[in-house]
Amino acid sequence: MARVLIKGNEVIAEAALRADVDAFFGYPITPQNEVPEYLARELPKKGKVFLQSESELAGINMVLGASAAGARVMTSSSGPGLCLMLEAISSMALTRLPAVIIDVMRSGPGAGDLAPAQEDWKLSGNGAYKIPILLPGNVQELANMVYEAFDIADQYGTPVLVLADGMLGQMMEPVDFEKLPLRRTNLPDKPWRMASVSEKGYRTQMQLTFGKPLTEFTDRFENETMPEIKKNETRYEAFGLEDADIVVAAYGTAARMAKAAIKELHTDKKIGFIRPMTAWPFPEEPFRQIGKSCKAVICPEINTIGQMIDDVRIAVNGRMPVYHVGNTKTGPLNTENVVRALEAYLKEEVK
Amino acid sequence: MARVLIKGNEVIAEAALRADVDAFFGYPITPQNEVPEYLARELPKKGKVFLQSESELAGINMVLGASAAGARVMTSSSGPGLCLMLEAISSMALTRLPAVIIDVMRSGPGAGDLAPAQEDWKLSGNGAYKIPILLPGNVQELANMVYEAFDIADQYGTPVLVLADGMLGQMMEPVDFEKLPLRRTNLPDKPWRMASVSEKGYRTQMQLTFGKPLTEFTDRFENETMPEIKKNETRYEAFGLEDADIVVAAYGTAARMAKAAIKELHTDKKIGFIRPMTAWPFPEEPFRQIGKSCKAVICPEINTIGQMIDDVRIAVNGRMPVYHVGNTKTGPLNTENVVRALEAYLKEEVK
Amino acid sequence: MARVLIKGNEVIAEAALRADVDAFFGYPITPQNEVPEYLARELPKKGKVFLQSESELAGINMVLGASAAGARVMTSSSGPGLCLMLEAISSMALTRLPAVIIDVMRSGPGAGDLAPAQEDWKLSGNGAYKIPILLPGNVQELANMVYEAFDIADQYGTPVLVLADGMLGQMMEPVDFEKLPLRRTNLPDKPWRMASVSEKGYRTQMQLTFGKPLTEFTDRFENETMPEIKKNETRYEAFGLEDADIVVAAYGTAARMAKAAIKELHTDKKIGFIRPMTAWPFPEEPFRQIGKSCKAVICPEINTIGQMIDDVRIAVNGRMPVYHVGNTKTGPLNTENVVRALEAYLKEEVK
Amino acid sequence: MARVLIKGNEVIAEAALRADVDAFFGYPITPQNEVPEYLARELPKKGKVFLQSESELAGINMVLGASAAGARVMTSSSGPGLCLMLEAISSMALTRLPAVIIDVMRSGPGAGDLAPAQEDWKLSGNGAYKIPILLPGNVQELANMVYEAFDIADQYGTPVLVLADGMLGQMMEPVDFEKLPLRRTNLPDKPWRMASVSEKGYRTQMQLTFGKPLTEFTDRFENETMPEIKKNETRYEAFGLEDADIVVAAYGTAARMAKAAIKELHTDKKIGFIRPMTAWPFPEEPFRQIGKSCKAVICPEINTIGQMIDDVRIAVNGRMPVYHVGNTKTGPLNTENVVRALEAYLKEEVK
Repeated sequence: MARVLIKGNEVIAEAALRADVDAFFGYPITPQNEVPEYLARELPKKGKVFLQSESELAGINMVLGASAAGARVMTSSSGPGLCLMLEAISSMALTRLPAVIIDVMRSGPGAGDLAPAQEDWKLSGNGAYKIPILLPGNVQELANMVYEAFDIADQYGTPVLVLADGMLGQMMEPVDFEKLPLRRTNLPDKPWRMASVSEKGYRTQMQLTFGKPLTEFTDRFENETMPEIKKNETRYEAFGLEDADIVVAAYGTAARMAKAAIKELHTDKKIGFIRPMTAWPFPEEPFRQIGKSCKAVICPEINTIGQMIDDVRIAVNGRMPVYHVGNTKTGPLNTENVVRALEAYLKEEVK
Repeated sequence: MARVLIKGNEVIAEAALRADVDAFFGYPITPQNEVPEYLARELPKKGKVFLQSESELAGINMVLGASAAGARVMTSSSGPGLCLMLEAISSMALTRLPAVIIDVMRSGPGAGDLAPAQEDWKLSGNGAYKIPILLPGNVQELANMVYEAFDIADQYGTPVLVLADGMLGQMMEPVDFEKLPLRRTNLPDKPWRMASVSEKGYRTQMQLTFGKPLTEFTDRFENETMPEIKKNETRYEAFGLEDADIVVAAYGTAARMAKAAIKELHTDKKIGFIRPMTAWPFPEEPFRQIGKSCKAVICPEINTIGQMIDDVRIAVNGRMPVYHVGNTKTGPLNTENVVRALEAYLKEEVK
Repeated sequence: MARVLIKGNEVIAEAALRADVDAFFGYPITPQNEVPEYLARELPKKGKVFLQSESELAGINMVLGASAAGARVMTSSSGPGLCLMLEAISSMALTRLPAVIIDVMRSGPGAGDLAPAQEDWKLSGNGAYKIPILLPGNVQELANMVYEAFDIADQYGTPVLVLADGMLGQMMEPVDFEKLPLRRTNLPDKPWRMASVSEKGYRTQMQLTFGKPLTEFTDRFENETMPEIKKNETRYEAFGLEDADIVVAAYGTAARMAKAAIKELHTDKKIGFIRPMTAWPFPEEPFRQIGKSCKAVICPEINTIGQMIDDVRIAVNGRMPVYHVGNTKTGPLNTENVVRALEAYLKEEVK
Repeated sequence: MARVLIKGNEVIAEAALRADVDAFFGYPITPQNEVPEYLARELPKKGKVFLQSESELAGINMVLGASAAGARVMTSSSGPGLCLMLEAISSMALTRLPAVIIDVMRSGPGAGDLAPAQEDWKLSGNGAYKIPILLPGNVQELANMVYEAFDIADQYGTPVLVLADGMLGQMMEPVDFEKLPLRRTNLPDKPWRMASVSEKGYRTQMQLTFGKPLTEFTDRFENETMPEIKKNETRYEAFGLEDADIVVAAYGTAARMAKAAIKELHTDKKIGFIRPMTAWPFPEEPFRQIGKSCKAVICPEINTIGQMIDDVRIAVNGRMPVYHVGNTKTGPLNTENVVRALEAYLKEEVK
């Protein structure tokens, strides 16, 4: 199969099928409805499971149950649904059960608005517990990341969150499914996979909730698995950092707008670019590479106050000011907004 | 292993282990807490899954997910928890996913009271949809029924409910685990069990919820599976029906009280006895066997208004009056209450 | 305002507004979506509360909270949502908090089918606990019953369920809102209504769940309130019972079909008619009035196995056979089906 | 009443009673169980509402419902419960319904451990939406903050979270309830409070979820209310910042350990101290006051990786290094750990 023109949400579904997902459990919500629609049609043809739950709370717990039974499982939702899933995701983070959770973001909080957005960075639980969070920037990457998320989940024994902004879900772009990443070959057995006898029962022993301390299990995760994930799975795209006058840092669709803005900008100043492709582990390396000539880091996000910007501030660590560019009263962030913000900051900062 | 003296709740857990349960998901609730405690200790030793959920809603959906992944799964709770499970049980009744649900009853409605009771007959969803409901009457039978419930679930593709009254859970009695029923050998494959390719995908196709009619699936269940279950799985214990002056009909611990009352009673009248061992299918046969000399059917239940009594009324169909004996202001039903009720009705009805 | 032509679901909303409902909490579900749509538009105009919850579980608990705060509250849903509400309805039955719950039925179990149906009779919790259940038969009656449900809830301190079949919700009929029943004037104060000091604190004392027995509270309900509700609130429509050859008993839209069938039927036999207008208390009186000449009671229901029929069997108590007429493979029950069933039974039973 | 010796959890309950809370809805969880126990006993005496929900999801939605009905309401829980509440808190953040939520933290993620901890900083939703988060440091302050939280909630129309670490809940200390803050007198009416007619219906109009944009409402909150809250409600305790050699920043019980450590420390170096008393708005001012002589900021937290530390890093903005001190393999953070960490950093940084 050569390149096909396909919608982001359909790509999520197709990539999951190619990653041999065993079961999907979830509840429909805009703007990701093509994901369950596609899987509802295709999974049964393969003798696999598609089940619409009565709520996101139900769906994520079905995911947890099926993962505990050894299956490759996924769900897909948007912010209001993600909120209802946090307790179970937190439980899967504790018990390190693998699963892939897709969040096609819309605006919030609460039931929010149907408009696509980038508003769930902080809602992802990022910080209270650590799970890999992937940030696709275009539709091919969405395919690749969803595909690879299943392997990452199995390799480290962890839920993996794919944080796709709503525009990506609705966007049509050419995708080549033959260019998916290679399947990983080093995946561990699933010792809890309904094995009749197992000496490696620690996953379930740790799950005893009648009073045992978690210290031993938590230690293992924090001292062994977390450094490994940081070393192997941190991802970003970056250019022009060493001699930049200004750096733009953005993820997802906002990063596309940022790139377009850099092209459109009529200036002789040098603009560097950083696109985090994982929210955790957050890529600190490119921020360290920013040269001394840089006067400011600009963070375009498709929201009003900024969320990723806090992680950028921590990475930049005061070496230069960090500014937010976001939605305005007239609508969500667009390339034009980014161009104007860059012009303004260039004028102000780079005299 | 010979007979051991063991508590009802522990018997539930041990029988499930011997039935090769793969995973337990649930939330603690009085009066069944020994069930999860026992399984939390024993399942991990076998490399199997024990997971405490954050609520019964979460737990039953984990059960559903793991069942969809092909595992032998169970949960255990009491009335307030059963209420929270009804939507998912109803979904499993629709999609005919096998699972074993234990309800060790306490008084209700709502959060109710911690006292053991027989109050969930009507809450079992019995009537809105049909799933096999088993009614153990002593601790050995509790072992046998929990053990067999897993086979019944797999054979017919259905959730199975074991309705144990709270006394049974707390009671210690000798049990011989070598006398468990034989494992059934005619269990069907689980075609939806994560098979990579399957032509028998109807279970999952039926689960498509984007507008397909359910008629075909429902027809099959109602016209093929239901008659089969009725033929094979209806169970009861009965004696002295043909020439009875009065018949006592009761289940669970109330049936023990009824038997004890019959022994204690000083009378030359003949007392017949029916103990339904399945709530669905409800055993109508023994009620048909009641002879013309019978003046009344007495239904002792450990509740205030009576619940099973409605099914008895339907089975008796007006051939004789049906009376409730239940809890009094001074406490739950006991043998003494049943004796006095029998004496009163004998005096009144059998002149 | 004279008679207006209006859809059943809109009538539910308008009647609730006229009954001075303070707040609506709920989640959209077919086939009742016009209810929240109408209230979302109208409640804010009156400075009252409309809030869409994230699930039915959330919605019914909002209802419970607002009722505990003294408000007149309601929700509306269909079977799959009702399942998720049962625990909280059961809690409201225990604590006797007033609220109005509308169930516009569709087929089940589980997520079921979008087609209108009469499938929630048994799901209403009817039996496990007793709450008034109203059964409207046409759109004017739907208006009246929804309107009066709020008074019944307040008068007896109880949740009230309105069980409307899906056809009623979608049907357009003329309604005269000036013919709503009178508002009741004997409604008790709500002592728990956020009063700063109250000696009648029993509602909340009863709600203590740290170990107190419920006996006293339950006694009061069963011995005082239940008989009062049975005496005052039992409702039905009936005719031609004393000399009937056959009686048809049905509720909701099925009762309309039954009436139409009686008219269409070419026979010199006499057909009696009973329409229960409350599921609890179930009207036993008209069944007692059926004369000795009656050969059978026919129960048309818009489902496949029959649910109301069990209460009819108990009321008929074996005096004559009771038969189910329901959906067929070609579709839901219609008048033609009822005509044919009547003809068949007339031929067979009344020779 | 003079000073009384009283446990932290009881103080929460007593302060809420004195703040005229109308209703409590919640589910028991260690380590805050004395809160519902106390309120279950005291609220009914005042004719007010105490209701134990079946889960935290149910409880928080009851809170939402009662708040929408105009009541002063609260719930109390710990991390695993807070997770289940996030969707509804997020909805209350959107609709700006006032309520007080107490989180007595234990370790996590998931069901975690019963040990007291400081692990919910990131789980509080802080960042995805903004709600005031109060951080009591001793038992008197716990009383004051719980008391005032109700006024803050009403004044700005917002849920308010009190983040108390588990030690505070279990600790006994003298409290003087006569020293509670003054009740605020400038509280707005609650226009949505079941008023029969209201022109200020914007709260409910904003709640319409059938497609209206949220922009107008969000704008108002972000541009008017948020700056007001930041100006009026930001709180901290601090000393010795201008000429400090090292600054310790901590909240809750960790701040007490930090103070004790400073006293125990044998050094001629100057140790500054910052205790944030609100998590949002986070107090940036004292961090700006840290003088140039300061070599490092040390953040003791009762967890393993650090959560508050990210907000400290953003506030410090790279002017000096920021270090985490937390739990060790041998147990949770204690004063001794802080002393040793201070000694080590003093040696390393301040040569």
